[in-house]
Amino acid sequence: MYKIVLLRHGESVWNKENRFTGWTDVDLSEKGVLEAHSAGKLLLSEGYTFDTAYTSVLKRAIRTLWITLDEMDLMWISVIRSWRLNERHYGALQGLNKAETAASYGDEQVFVWRRSYETAPPELKPDDERSPVNDRRYQSLKPEEIPLTECLKDTVARVLPYWRDVISPDILSGKKILVAAHGNSIRALVKILDEISDDDIAKVNIPTGVPLVYELDEDLKPIKHYYLGDQEKIKAAMDEVSNQGKAKK
Amino acid sequence: MYKIVLLRHGESVWNKENRFTGWTDVDLSEKGVLEAHSAGKLLLSEGYTFDTAYTSVLKRAIRTLWITLDEMDLMWISVIRSWRLNERHYGALQGLNKAETAASYGDEQVFVWRRSYETAPPELKPDDERSPVNDRRYQSLKPEEIPLTECLKDTVARVLPYWRDVISPDILSGKKILVAAHGNSIRALVKILDEISDDDIAKVNIPTGVPLVYELDEDLKPIKHYYLGDQEKIKAAMDEVSNQGKAKK
Repeated sequence: MYKIVLLRHGESVWNKENRFTGWTDVDLSEKGVLEAHSAGKLLLSEGYTFDTAYTSVLKRAIRTLWITLDEMDLMWISVIRSWRLNERHYGALQGLNKAETAASYGDEQVFVWRRSYETAPPELKPDDERSPVNDRRYQSLKPEEIPLTECLKDTVARVLPYWRDVISPDILSGKKILVAAHGNSIRALVKILDEISDDDIAKVNIPTGVPLVYELDEDLKPIKHYYLGDQEKIKAAMDEVSNQGKAKK
Repeated sequence: MYKIVLLRHGESVWNKENRFTGWTDVDLSEKGVLEAHSAGKLLLSEGYTFDTAYTSVLKRAIRTLWITLDEMDLMWISVIRSWRLNERHYGALQGLNKAETAASYGDEQVFVWRRSYETAPPELKPDDERSPVNDRRYQSLKPEEIPLTECLKDTVARVLPYWRDVISPDILSGKKILVAAHGNSIRALVKILDEISDDDIAKVNIPTGVPLVYELDEDLKPIKHYYLGDQEKIKAAMDEVSNQGKAKK
């Protein structure tokens, strides 16, 4: 039997300001830093250890990982970064406040952009200063790989080959793996692992800073999954994620 | 023309206590943390950037690297850790105070252990709790690769293949490389680069937390090298390293 741990980064400055973040490289908030420390302490106290960690090229995930590894005295393990584990690209919405966007476009439109599987937000223009085309960290990508917006289907499409070709072989080789990533790249992994339908994935919310453990059989099919920690707090955190797209009451 | 930057970690808790550290995984002191921040700020202000960083599997080098990358907004670059960039293994001296050791064995013996090219300190016993045999991070090494003590010649012997087969091809591919490592693994690199004789390497001292830049020709032969920053402070720091092995006056 295999195990993998998925960890959504702690609260970021823009989570806190309720803004669409996507590929914007915003840092953790103070609360997010504390969440990462808690995640590391929890994993350590529950007896977890790792050989390799995967993360995105965005600092809120990388810092969450660094803090976690520091707490676990595992700074020495291999860390592999990939843009394929980045948050979903939020297109022209990146930087906008979620509640204000909902007030302008309506809760329903924002819910569609946030949770519809196939409807992407409006595209960034390639010459927009927010465009990944202008960011050195994406210069080794093929032009067709660089998104100007994404729906979750697009995110799944770029996460899937990484899961299949990079992470899965590492798990099968017996390595203990931690993935420190983002709400939607983790939803993509969860959809792939649990074979969740395109409709049902809308209802899956990943809380920040809570280790999500998958136990997998010899074909990497899930036997079960669970969050580590206080189950009531985790439920409240999932509800909070679900409510972020709504206009202020 | 190519450039590579070598960075010795900031002061560690045991540098401060003047103890032989070797492969002991001690952390940075407060001063060491400040030195790492200064190194990052200096590299940024001097217009440096990097594509890949190499470091050891010891936290004083990794944390120095993390702080440097954070200051440079480069947390997203590839980081590759290798035991081959570890500090020289100090054998049975690991943990002992340098001045007390000098008082017991004499300045001359300690100078030989610290600076002779071919004389290693007494070996650790394999069942010593300090032995790398008992450390999970070295379990993928071949038994004959795991040192129980090292002279600088031994350190050079394990750094050389890594320089030749891993780092050099990366430089030649056009990548900008930072190596965050240790006093003796950097002395090994300097010896290799500048083809310094076995006798003369004894006089080379690497200050903590100061970026050392090598400009290299198309065959990776050094054109010149220099430390970044205040040259008088750097000279004082090099003298301090040189004096550490002496008994207290």
